[in-house]
Amino acid sequence: MKETPMLTEPILIGGQWRQSAGSMKSFAAVDPSTKTPLAEAYPVSPWEEVEAALAAGAEAAEALRGVPRDDLARFLERFADGIEAHADTVAALAHVETGLAIEPRLRSSELPRTTDQLRQAAAAARERSWCHATIDTKRGLRSMLGPLGGPVVVFGPNNFPLAFNSVAGGDAAAALAAGNPIIAKANTGHPGTTKLLTEAAFEAMQATGMPSGLVQLIYRTSHEAGARLVSHPLVGATGFTGSRGAGLQLKEAADRVGKPIYLEMSSVNPVFVLPGALEERLEAIADELFASCSLGTGQFCTKPGLTVVLASERSEAFLEAIAARFQAPPGVLLGSTGLWTIGDAVRQLRDAGAHLVVGGAEVDGPSYRYANTLLSVSGEQFLAQPEALQTEAFGVVSLMVFAHDVPQMQAIARRLEGNLTASFYTHTDGTDDAIYDGVAPIVRGKVGRLLNDAMPTGVAVSPAMNHGGPFPATGHPGFTAVGIPASILRFGALHSYDRVRSHRLPPELQDRNPTGRMWRLIDGAWTRDDVG
Amino acid sequence: MKETPMLTEPILIGGQWRQSAGSMKSFAAVDPSTKTPLAEAYPVSPWEEVEAALAAGAEAAEALRGVPRDDLARFLERFADGIEAHADTVAALAHVETGLAIEPRLRSSELPRTTDQLRQAAAAARERSWCHATIDTKRGLRSMLGPLGGPVVVFGPNNFPLAFNSVAGGDAAAALAAGNPIIAKANTGHPGTTKLLTEAAFEAMQATGMPSGLVQLIYRTSHEAGARLVSHPLVGATGFTGSRGAGLQLKEAADRVGKPIYLEMSSVNPVFVLPGALEERLEAIADELFASCSLGTGQFCTKPGLTVVLASERSEAFLEAIAARFQAPPGVLLGSTGLWTIGDAVRQLRDAGAHLVVGGAEVDGPSYRYANTLLSVSGEQFLAQPEALQTEAFGVVSLMVFAHDVPQMQAIARRLEGNLTASFYTHTDGTDDAIYDGVAPIVRGKVGRLLNDAMPTGVAVSPAMNHGGPFPATGHPGFTAVGIPASILRFGALHSYDRVRSHRLPPELQDRNPTGRMWRLIDGAWTRDDVG
Repeated sequence: MKETPMLTEPILIGGQWRQSAGSMKSFAAVDPSTKTPLAEAYPVSPWEEVEAALAAGAEAAEALRGVPRDDLARFLERFADGIEAHADTVAALAHVETGLAIEPRLRSSELPRTTDQLRQAAAAARERSWCHATIDTKRGLRSMLGPLGGPVVVFGPNNFPLAFNSVAGGDAAAALAAGNPIIAKANTGHPGTTKLLTEAAFEAMQATGMPSGLVQLIYRTSHEAGARLVSHPLVGATGFTGSRGAGLQLKEAADRVGKPIYLEMSSVNPVFVLPGALEERLEAIADELFASCSLGTGQFCTKPGLTVVLASERSEAFLEAIAARFQAPPGVLLGSTGLWTIGDAVRQLRDAGAHLVVGGAEVDGPSYRYANTLLSVSGEQFLAQPEALQTEAFGVVSLMVFAHDVPQMQAIARRLEGNLTASFYTHTDGTDDAIYDGVAPIVRGKVGRLLNDAMPTGVAVSPAMNHGGPFPATGHPGFTAVGIPASILRFGALHSYDRVRSHRLPPELQDRNPTGRMWRLIDGAWTRDDVG
Repeated sequence: MKETPMLTEPILIGGQWRQSAGSMKSFAAVDPSTKTPLAEAYPVSPWEEVEAALAAGAEAAEALRGVPRDDLARFLERFADGIEAHADTVAALAHVETGLAIEPRLRSSELPRTTDQLRQAAAAARERSWCHATIDTKRGLRSMLGPLGGPVVVFGPNNFPLAFNSVAGGDAAAALAAGNPIIAKANTGHPGTTKLLTEAAFEAMQATGMPSGLVQLIYRTSHEAGARLVSHPLVGATGFTGSRGAGLQLKEAADRVGKPIYLEMSSVNPVFVLPGALEERLEAIADELFASCSLGTGQFCTKPGLTVVLASERSEAFLEAIAARFQAPPGVLLGSTGLWTIGDAVRQLRDAGAHLVVGGAEVDGPSYRYANTLLSVSGEQFLAQPEALQTEAFGVVSLMVFAHDVPQMQAIARRLEGNLTASFYTHTDGTDDAIYDGVAPIVRGKVGRLLNDAMPTGVAVSPAMNHGGPFPATGHPGFTAVGIPASILRFGALHSYDRVRSHRLPPELQDRNPTGRMWRLIDGAWTRDDVG
């Protein structure tokens, strides 16, 4: 038998690894450390292939209703095990595709975070408190969050090839835990890593007897096909992490037909450093700010991109202290796109009146690098062009705003767009509390997570996390993309059962608590007891 | 002193009843029982007035942060008391404006439901379990649903002048309980009723010391101003109940700028009557169907507009039994708009192949009436034009679909749009269970509430209710418009606090349980205890 040569890496549709019909149109990933294209070619899937994934996903959604949640949990755990079994290979390829360090980043930090998320999702799928089973015994009404009835499409970002990966990251784990199949659209920056992770998912699907369309993978489509995908009648919902431009295009398509779409887009994560804190620990805060800014070469959604201080000699010294740290050699960016989006953003900031303190240019050399860049602007200037001066620069770029007094700082706070986070640094003895009380309440409503005396990078996978916030940070202020079980709620539909005969109720709503440990709201009280 | 004559009824902006600048452009309500315009003139507010409401609402949102939740609860209770104090006047005016009966409908059913909702909202505002306070003691992370940071705009429907009223109905109660001010846009069908209810709110605001912009009222704006309103930067969110056309226009405007909007639009509420049920109790089900269809002259969001049966002699007899009941004289519609929207919908259904069994025409006379209308169609025809045959007719209009076998019934189920409800009638002895098991799981994912052996009208105010469902019934499948506390969740923003100093935390997240009765999720367990 003669084998047809594989033109491009296979896609996974309906439980089959198959050659894409889009093989003639392909792309390759690029090693950003050497600017060298990698050998593997990945297909751009035509619409017919996307449609096939939708059909298989819809079938899997129906089949999943009959799959015991313990089995689904076993799949998620086996998936995590499989990733660990290939941890070195995965981390090595992710490094080549993204330029992120194997250590301390990919191998011993991001990969364990990824498998931990999958195991937390498994625990949630097994225990099921997340579905908020609610029972009104008097009226014969019972409700819970059930699956969406169609596959969830996941678009992962370029900056976390594992923990936010389309197939194995937080959105995928949450969508699966809620009982939905997923269609992963690989980030084109790390298609090989995504394929390795999908192989682990596929092996786990087979080992645990999951429906064949539970996890599917395509690498790329046209923008038009992407818009059709998220707005297709068979789709349950979409999870997207990436740029504001791409996100808004998908959002428009999904919104038009009322398909839920959860987006995590852009955020400058303002940090307010109040005068007492600068008196007390200027150098330490400068250290923290630079460390947080430069983590992952500034390519974090939670990178502090905007610092607000009161103008004073001390805050001028703070700017200088930060400037000194920004002189450090820059890290490698995820790809060439980063270079021009950063260049573009810095240009926009300068055009809007920001003064360049340090950096501001691409660094020539064998890898993609942009000089660490610090800018400053007066409060007055900021208020003249607040939108332009909140342009996100996805790299080690930060803007310091000098407010001339507290009312101006409050005015700046009022003009902030929706952000994932905001931080306040204040003196430990409470001398900043009056300013805090005047500014923090304004900021509170504009962000998902409010920090005290800490930088925003480092997003703990906790039930009390909010990796979310008002638009344009995300598409809805009520949901988080990180933290189990809260992130799962995005992928549930509210199902009420009105006088439904008891043997027809899902296990979660029957009189007997199906796990013995599941929390349910019975007649107004949270309990793990059975009904009656 | 000479008084300037009032040209139109006053609007309520920023705590002041004032003459609208739009007085020259006005409208009047019409008594649908006599087709007579009422004496009072109501203004069409120009944009500047809407903007003034937004500014006052934003101020009120900031001020509300400092208002103890017990005081907010007292306001809601006082509001309910005030409505009760004027119950006869309110019911009488609502009757004149809508044609709905004072008894048994408005005075002793809808009005008590309205005040009950306000009191349940007060209890939720006081007790606060709805905000899902979540505490992770190990990581120093605490989260809760907080207010949105801006006023909630409420557009109420024409069909429930009290219980879904813009100022006193379910959306208003939920938005207020979550700590948001509201801007009520009166339904133009019952502006006087809305004014009376707003007077009760205003009196309660003053008596309990609420911020002056807590509740504001305008009667009407241009469509353009409405779109600007729901997409304004100062707005927190919008709650809309009404027609699909109007809802989609507002949705598009709000979605474009990422402002949450919750819509309850259209629904045909399919009822599957399986063969065993027809064998067992044909006449009783026909009674129930007609009673549910004709409640409120068919102008209920949950009116059963589509019945699916298997073709047989027995189901033909069922159609005849219903047809006999539909011969009854029709009730009065809410207004002239109803006449032509029903006429239009019936035309669309007939154009798509539905056969007219009974009715199908306006009834001449001194009030707005349309003959009770029953139509039928084969399963094959339905599948040929499933969208057109799901056109909602907001009156006593119902379509029966005759599927020729169970697979065709399943195919019909698969083509259903998102609905608020679906009902299944089956034999009490279980003989229909095989068909139920084949069809109900398909339907489950398409509706908010699934009923057994009951018609969908009668939406209990219960924590386990879902008055919601997938698009186009609503804009998001995860939320309900009825049922406290669940309906409140729509109007909260997720607020995480990361290592925030304890004295700066909101009371709900401090170590001590602020009410002693509030349920909080502390380190994974729901409890009413304090932390530690």
